[in-house]
Amino acid sequence: MDHPDLLSQDIPFADAAIYRLNDSQALVQSLDFFTPVVDDPYTYGRIAAANSLSDIFAMGARPLTAMNIVAFPLCQLGADVLLQILQGGAERVAQAGALLVGGHSIEDDEPKYGLSVTGIVDPAELVTTCGCRPGDQLILTKPLGTGLLATAIKGGVLSEADISVAIDGMITLNQQAATVMLEVGVSACTDITGFGLLGHSAELAEASDVGLRIDMKSLPAYPQSAEMAEIGLIPEGSYRNRDFYFPRVDGQGSCEPFSLDLFCDPQTSGGLLIAVARNKVDFLIQRLTAARVPAYRVGEATAGPPGHLQLVG
Amino acid sequence: MDHPDLLSQDIPFADAAIYRLNDSQALVQSLDFFTPVVDDPYTYGRIAAANSLSDIFAMGARPLTAMNIVAFPLCQLGADVLLQILQGGAERVAQAGALLVGGHSIEDDEPKYGLSVTGIVDPAELVTTCGCRPGDQLILTKPLGTGLLATAIKGGVLSEADISVAIDGMITLNQQAATVMLEVGVSACTDITGFGLLGHSAELAEASDVGLRIDMKSLPAYPQSAEMAEIGLIPEGSYRNRDFYFPRVDGQGSCEPFSLDLFCDPQTSGGLLIAVARNKVDFLIQRLTAARVPAYRVGEATAGPPGHLQLVG
Repeated sequence: MDHPDLLSQDIPFADAAIYRLNDSQALVQSLDFFTPVVDDPYTYGRIAAANSLSDIFAMGARPLTAMNIVAFPLCQLGADVLLQILQGGAERVAQAGALLVGGHSIEDDEPKYGLSVTGIVDPAELVTTCGCRPGDQLILTKPLGTGLLATAIKGGVLSEADISVAIDGMITLNQQAATVMLEVGVSACTDITGFGLLGHSAELAEASDVGLRIDMKSLPAYPQSAEMAEIGLIPEGSYRNRDFYFPRVDGQGSCEPFSLDLFCDPQTSGGLLIAVARNKVDFLIQRLTAARVPAYRVGEATAGPPGHLQLVG
Repeated sequence: MDHPDLLSQDIPFADAAIYRLNDSQALVQSLDFFTPVVDDPYTYGRIAAANSLSDIFAMGARPLTAMNIVAFPLCQLGADVLLQILQGGAERVAQAGALLVGGHSIEDDEPKYGLSVTGIVDPAELVTTCGCRPGDQLILTKPLGTGLLATAIKGGVLSEADISVAIDGMITLNQQAATVMLEVGVSACTDITGFGLLGHSAELAEASDVGLRIDMKSLPAYPQSAEMAEIGLIPEGSYRNRDFYFPRVDGQGSCEPFSLDLFCDPQTSGGLLIAVARNKVDFLIQRLTAARVPAYRVGEATAGPPGHLQLVG
């Protein structure tokens, strides 16, 4: 697509599409949906909605409207389960200050749920993947490991009670983190989802034309994810991420295996990865902490080679 | 949802959500997706996109952006089939003057495809379901019968070559019809999809607080749909529409069975149902015809009872 108002065409690996309406307003649009990551339908709905809204927050935008995307085996699972999923989604959309304005549902053998979200932003205030500069510090706002834990849930190895901390994390909107990020002023941002910290870091490095040094010992993990990695419950997406992105990564040999499992782990409703100037990083962490948003320093940007990740074990 | 900028909350059975950005601009948002109605993947993609775009046109809006919604068995059907579906969708989006700006896809046993579409409109120029007045004439811009024909395709009774006229119809954007409708100035409009002419007429009648008299002998049918109805290949949705809407319908007893089958038939990418003042109807038909858009007179609005349909066989 080549169109003067499609601002996202100049942002490699943009988290959402950006369409300029006028000098001070641009639409920010994204959609996502997936099969259940937990058994409880209300929780599933909340996680799916937090995940769908995340792209809007990652770009510094404000969500306006959301539409449900639903595929559901109504006869098999019943209307009450569907209702709970939708109530969970609606609760998160309302929490985000957006309006749920419809959607579409079809019969299907397996449930799928997510949202198409439209946000709005002043183009001058967009936060993108492109602005990271050498010396910038990297802050991650949620722990890692949701892929490992969801795999364990599917395999019946863990119950939802066992992963309550991770569930709280997945439900959490990236809204507070984004608000603080906008107040402080940062260089770049992306949200961590299916490509893991590995993939989304690599994309940010490529988009910003910098290298990134990742301090693998500092990677935060949700409880139980180490145990799941140890018994080999690695999600398939982890291997896909490794295969795709490792050609641009150095230093794997120096890393603990679990830190690599975390690094490659596909996230559902993961945190923001924020690049911030060195002289602002303490202030950002202080403000995030005050807003009860976790803030983990996971590395820094370097001169390069561009698009390259250097892992320090 | 109760929000001063959510204009669609005051429009019963609105075809899309309307969110006011400012005095002269409102977003119009809708999404739709479904399993294949034909075997050819490119054609399926074009039909799904024309269908998803239709709600935007029905409200007199202009589509700006569209995002793909894809579920697909990649290993089973292969990337080339998926590519053709997406190319078909992209072709229609481009034809509509909109931009395809991303989307989301997941693995699934059965293909599903559709689009989330955002349009824009001046709120003063919105065409809704609410404006129909007694005496208004009803114009339909595509024949009926796609539900009957899709059922026959699924059952192997007809081939795509047999239903080429209907396929051409389903592929056709409601854009030209909408452009003419805006030029002429009309009272109300809705697009005909899953609830059939029956259901969408009933909703328009209820939203506008008028009765509608439907001239059942005038209902236009795609070729082969009469034959399919005759051998009893009635889609399940047809019975659902009948069960749900017949309590507010009179005169069924006077109608030919096939006209009722057409009336109740769930449509994929159906035409617009336009209500227009009697003194403008000839001009509307003339302008539609000049734009190569079919224009069928199917009835008129009456004083009531409100929300009620009177069938004349």
